[in-house]
Amino acid sequence: MRGLLLVLACTACFAAFADEGMWTFDDFPASRVKQAYGVDISPAWLDHVRLSTLRLANCSASFVSSEGLILTNQHCIESCLAAQSSPERSLIESGFSAPNRRDEQPCLFQQADVLLTSEDITERVLKATAGMGAAAAYAARNRLLSELEQACEQAGRHARVARLKCQSVNLYQGGQYFLYKYKRYDDLRLVFVPEGDIASFGGDLDNFQFPRWSLDFAVLRAYENGRPARTPNYIRVDFAGPKAGEVVFVAGDPASTARLQTRAQLEFERDTSIPATLLRASELRGRFIQFGQDNPDHERIMLAPLNALQNIIKVRRKELDTLNDPAFWSQKAADEERLRQSAHFAGADPWAEIEVAMARERALYLPFIFIEGGAGFTTSLFRDARWLVRGTMERDKPNGDRLGEFTDSAMPTIERDLFARIPVYAAYEQMNFSFSLERMREWLGPDFPLMHRLFAQQSPEGLAIQVLAETQLDDAALRRRLWESGRSAVDASRDPMIELARSIDPDARAIRRQYENEVEAPVAAASARIAAQRIRLYGTQIYPDATFTLRLNVGSVQGWLEDGVPVEPMTYLARAFERASGAPPFKIPDAWLRVKDQLDMRTPFCMATSNDIVGGNSGSPLLDASGRLVGLMFDGNIHSVAGRYWFNPANNRAVALHPAMIREALEKVYHAEYLLAELSRAP
Amino acid sequence: MRGLLLVLACTACFAAFADEGMWTFDDFPASRVKQAYGVDISPAWLDHVRLSTLRLANCSASFVSSEGLILTNQHCIESCLAAQSSPERSLIESGFSAPNRRDEQPCLFQQADVLLTSEDITERVLKATAGMGAAAAYAARNRLLSELEQACEQAGRHARVARLKCQSVNLYQGGQYFLYKYKRYDDLRLVFVPEGDIASFGGDLDNFQFPRWSLDFAVLRAYENGRPARTPNYIRVDFAGPKAGEVVFVAGDPASTARLQTRAQLEFERDTSIPATLLRASELRGRFIQFGQDNPDHERIMLAPLNALQNIIKVRRKELDTLNDPAFWSQKAADEERLRQSAHFAGADPWAEIEVAMARERALYLPFIFIEGGAGFTTSLFRDARWLVRGTMERDKPNGDRLGEFTDSAMPTIERDLFARIPVYAAYEQMNFSFSLERMREWLGPDFPLMHRLFAQQSPEGLAIQVLAETQLDDAALRRRLWESGRSAVDASRDPMIELARSIDPDARAIRRQYENEVEAPVAAASARIAAQRIRLYGTQIYPDATFTLRLNVGSVQGWLEDGVPVEPMTYLARAFERASGAPPFKIPDAWLRVKDQLDMRTPFCMATSNDIVGGNSGSPLLDASGRLVGLMFDGNIHSVAGRYWFNPANNRAVALHPAMIREALEKVYHAEYLLAELSRAP
Repeated sequence: MRGLLLVLACTACFAAFADEGMWTFDDFPASRVKQAYGVDISPAWLDHVRLSTLRLANCSASFVSSEGLILTNQHCIESCLAAQSSPERSLIESGFSAPNRRDEQPCLFQQADVLLTSEDITERVLKATAGMGAAAAYAARNRLLSELEQACEQAGRHARVARLKCQSVNLYQGGQYFLYKYKRYDDLRLVFVPEGDIASFGGDLDNFQFPRWSLDFAVLRAYENGRPARTPNYIRVDFAGPKAGEVVFVAGDPASTARLQTRAQLEFERDTSIPATLLRASELRGRFIQFGQDNPDHERIMLAPLNALQNIIKVRRKELDTLNDPAFWSQKAADEERLRQSAHFAGADPWAEIEVAMARERALYLPFIFIEGGAGFTTSLFRDARWLVRGTMERDKPNGDRLGEFTDSAMPTIERDLFARIPVYAAYEQMNFSFSLERMREWLGPDFPLMHRLFAQQSPEGLAIQVLAETQLDDAALRRRLWESGRSAVDASRDPMIELARSIDPDARAIRRQYENEVEAPVAAASARIAAQRIRLYGTQIYPDATFTLRLNVGSVQGWLEDGVPVEPMTYLARAFERASGAPPFKIPDAWLRVKDQLDMRTPFCMATSNDIVGGNSGSPLLDASGRLVGLMFDGNIHSVAGRYWFNPANNRAVALHPAMIREALEKVYHAEYLLAELSRAP
Repeated sequence: MRGLLLVLACTACFAAFADEGMWTFDDFPASRVKQAYGVDISPAWLDHVRLSTLRLANCSASFVSSEGLILTNQHCIESCLAAQSSPERSLIESGFSAPNRRDEQPCLFQQADVLLTSEDITERVLKATAGMGAAAAYAARNRLLSELEQACEQAGRHARVARLKCQSVNLYQGGQYFLYKYKRYDDLRLVFVPEGDIASFGGDLDNFQFPRWSLDFAVLRAYENGRPARTPNYIRVDFAGPKAGEVVFVAGDPASTARLQTRAQLEFERDTSIPATLLRASELRGRFIQFGQDNPDHERIMLAPLNALQNIIKVRRKELDTLNDPAFWSQKAADEERLRQSAHFAGADPWAEIEVAMARERALYLPFIFIEGGAGFTTSLFRDARWLVRGTMERDKPNGDRLGEFTDSAMPTIERDLFARIPVYAAYEQMNFSFSLERMREWLGPDFPLMHRLFAQQSPEGLAIQVLAETQLDDAALRRRLWESGRSAVDASRDPMIELARSIDPDARAIRRQYENEVEAPVAAASARIAAQRIRLYGTQIYPDATFTLRLNVGSVQGWLEDGVPVEPMTYLARAFERASGAPPFKIPDAWLRVKDQLDMRTPFCMATSNDIVGGNSGSPLLDASGRLVGLMFDGNIHSVAGRYWFNPANNRAVALHPAMIREALEKVYHAEYLLAELSRAP
């Protein structure tokens, strides 16, 4: 126990090197990796991997050919599969294999960003906010960051850099600011994806479990100007995969961790935000499942949303377990006290300031998430209505004065999603909208003023039915017309969804302002002071929390001890057939059963590695020391969920798909010759 | 804050008298009540109230006429209303008013117990278990208690005491044992119940809230030998009700509190049992609501189960909030440390022993509740199958050796429920059964050996569909035939539900034994040692935790300060009409709207009182000092939910229906003359 505690206590301090750490490419600890593993990670290696790794809308990925082929997970592209499906035909169910390039299909709502450069702007932020109170500094900082992003993108357009995306990045909870420049690919097409039954074999039950057997991969291709993108930086697939114990690296974009947050912030998650999320997600799961039993169309419609929801439930459940673990709190307390004792803080204690802000957050959280956060109005048509109402208002303002989601930099994505012609399923929208209105009234209480106003004459379900029956916002052309006509046209609209969005907008803006001023701004100010002290004490030999920006980490192919019993690091195809019950989620598709005899049952299927990854790293390439792709990350074991809060090297394991299994499937089951040839081509 | 803490610290100690306390009639602190309130509670008063108060299957009630009229809550008799309903006609919806005695309707599954005597058997228990280890003592004690109950009931039959029920009662978490003798009424009939829309006006939203406006009452009548029971002990209704500030008493059967439990036990609830319950209940709520949208029949079928489920969710949510409240834990820690320091415990520290048992409970809890507790098989037909399989096995054994639910004393209730001819709704059963099988596999994991066995070839839903399609246990006559034919007939049955119950029975018994030996027995042994020390220190001037046995408490009609704003103790009819939106749960029935002009809008509707009550007290009479009924308990405010763990006199309030509102409704809306006349008759 003692040894474990010592290692665990390194979560946020400078100590013996471990596999823990999500390093930026700017500060990768190459010399310590050399010392620990004997491998050289050169600047050229880092540049090549950085330029070959992609951030998708929600996941990671990598280029795997010089003609724009992208390898990621099937579960990362579920929403574009759903958008290409109809109630009668689901690409999630059937999979898809383009017989040739001409038949590669659009993958809506996806994009792929390559990180080109990163510029440290910490000094400029400090200068712009010096001497200000928390709320003023918060606003000034956001304004500066918007302006820098805008100027960067304008300069890019000026220099005719195709699709330059500029994004400010806050590292170490306010300890450093960077301006990242990305090249964005926004014409992605679907090349190959296996059937859902094999891609997510084991389903929610095996999600965040190991051993497992899921062929969770998909292949896209980036296009530019209607032609396959030329991508000289790509990662060559080594179908042989790694050996057990081999040193391996993961590049990609872990979405979010809270390892540097204070105890007060984590108590808020434990007591308030996680329970509220879990209860609503669980109830909605019940509604989805029951809805799916109405008929096969409903079952198909709710499949992708159900998968996403179940993932949330599983993650939050295990996060809650971590936050109920006394061992975690001992380590956290020791870590926090060490930092707190290391310096005299001028003025108020920043940890105490965060406690005060958390008390406000407890009071404001529910109105904030329901009314401003949109949790009370979960239909895409309300989102569209709000974008129309707010977006046409906001875009008339100077860029730095707008709500953050309507800056010039963000507008292209809003317009893409607002104008997208995707199917809207009335029964499904109504279930979601009713549910969110019902729960908003329940959690805020029927006497909360806005609830009283909304439901004075009707039930939440009644309101949902009426508004959805009368709105015409499911017409993409109408949405575009309103958007392009601008504020006066939207103001004049009598569409009931727009009227609803308009009528609650003052309430929503008010709670947002209050939340920013009483929670976000003081937390930002106090966190920055804590971060500054942390960096004084440890330098950047500690790593920043995940922020859905590019990171690299090191580990090795290895299992772990579960209750004293060793878990082997590799699984093999044979066991998948033994495990199949014939009923989802343990159903092996017919295409596989037909060729079963031809398959090599000893093909490695999945692997466990000690890399420190979290959600967002899905689709990340697993690399060997020479920079070849030896696996595709798609999951972690159950202990990896605790990675939001700490990294326990004893049992936190990442899970990858073995490339040999990809080859076996493409070759013998799917006969995807042109794809396999492109993946196998020598550089 | 300090003052509050001091008072709160009295939760389990001898200190200044407060309204806190659920006192047994044996140990009611009459002299301290005299001192504090200036009222005399005489032994005769206590006897009369005891003999007039009833314990129902799930609630409390009282006799309110000499001819067996019983007053309780509408929500207490929902299952008998459901049993008298069909998919097309719901008594919950329509209400019921017997035009005369001949039309009073059976109320299935209800019973009413009057406490006749109570005998202290602590010494006998101590003697029977002296010197034994925890597991042996646990078994010996249970055997002794079964034997005493059996002997008591046999003696009653011998002496021709009609329907004598004998029950052992464990007070102070093992500090005292009593043998309670009840007279049981098991032929109860429905006389009057209002429409659901007014009985539960405000629905789940207003449940555990105050102010509120719910006409939550129902009238039953006890029958003996086919005729109205003669009940000379009854409580006279005073329709004028109490004045604000008046001292009032509540008699009834609070179901369960955990105020004397140790920190380790409460941490188990916070981290394990409450989250597990809340997540499953929330998901099931989603399924119920979506199921109800299929058609009006489904909506009616799921109404009563949905109400029960929503009540659980609300209670557990607020309990979790209490267990996340640092102020609660400070008080608890101080209380526990005071007791711990007060004596030298020979042998191991009992608090530490409970911690060890809780570590075991964390490991065993899920298999226990799913496999043995039945949470994995929630259809009444599985319950019937298990009773048939186990009951026919167990009843061949000596009474003291049987599983506790099959003792001679328990058999009549099992037979009543097993033989009841109630409607079984296939779609509803399938939803529940699928849900419970799915969640069992999810929570135990697909590789848990029993899960692997059950679902090797099919999904949980597939199993539910198949078993429900083929079982014939929905035939009450078949159930009776199998039960009466005995073990060999059940063994020979090929009914798939019986086969399922039989196939899992060894697993279920094994986990139950493990749970008893590793959790229940050591907890019982350690708790008894703590209780003995508590009684040595404080005597019985502290009260025992609630055990669904008869208690009496004192308080006054009063509001409280909510965030510094006073909440008045009475509500009035006018506001109910203002609050009505026309849509449930804020819908006032047509019968009321028709006579609106004739109603006195100043009629008091509900009241808040400072009595210390919890679930189980629903239906309790609110009594004035002279022993008249001045209200009907049906709820508490939101702070009362914390009453499971502590009593905060500053804001914990009970909620009662005012008798003036009962009269106004019976007279002007329902014209229930014969009932009103019987309630108003002078003694």
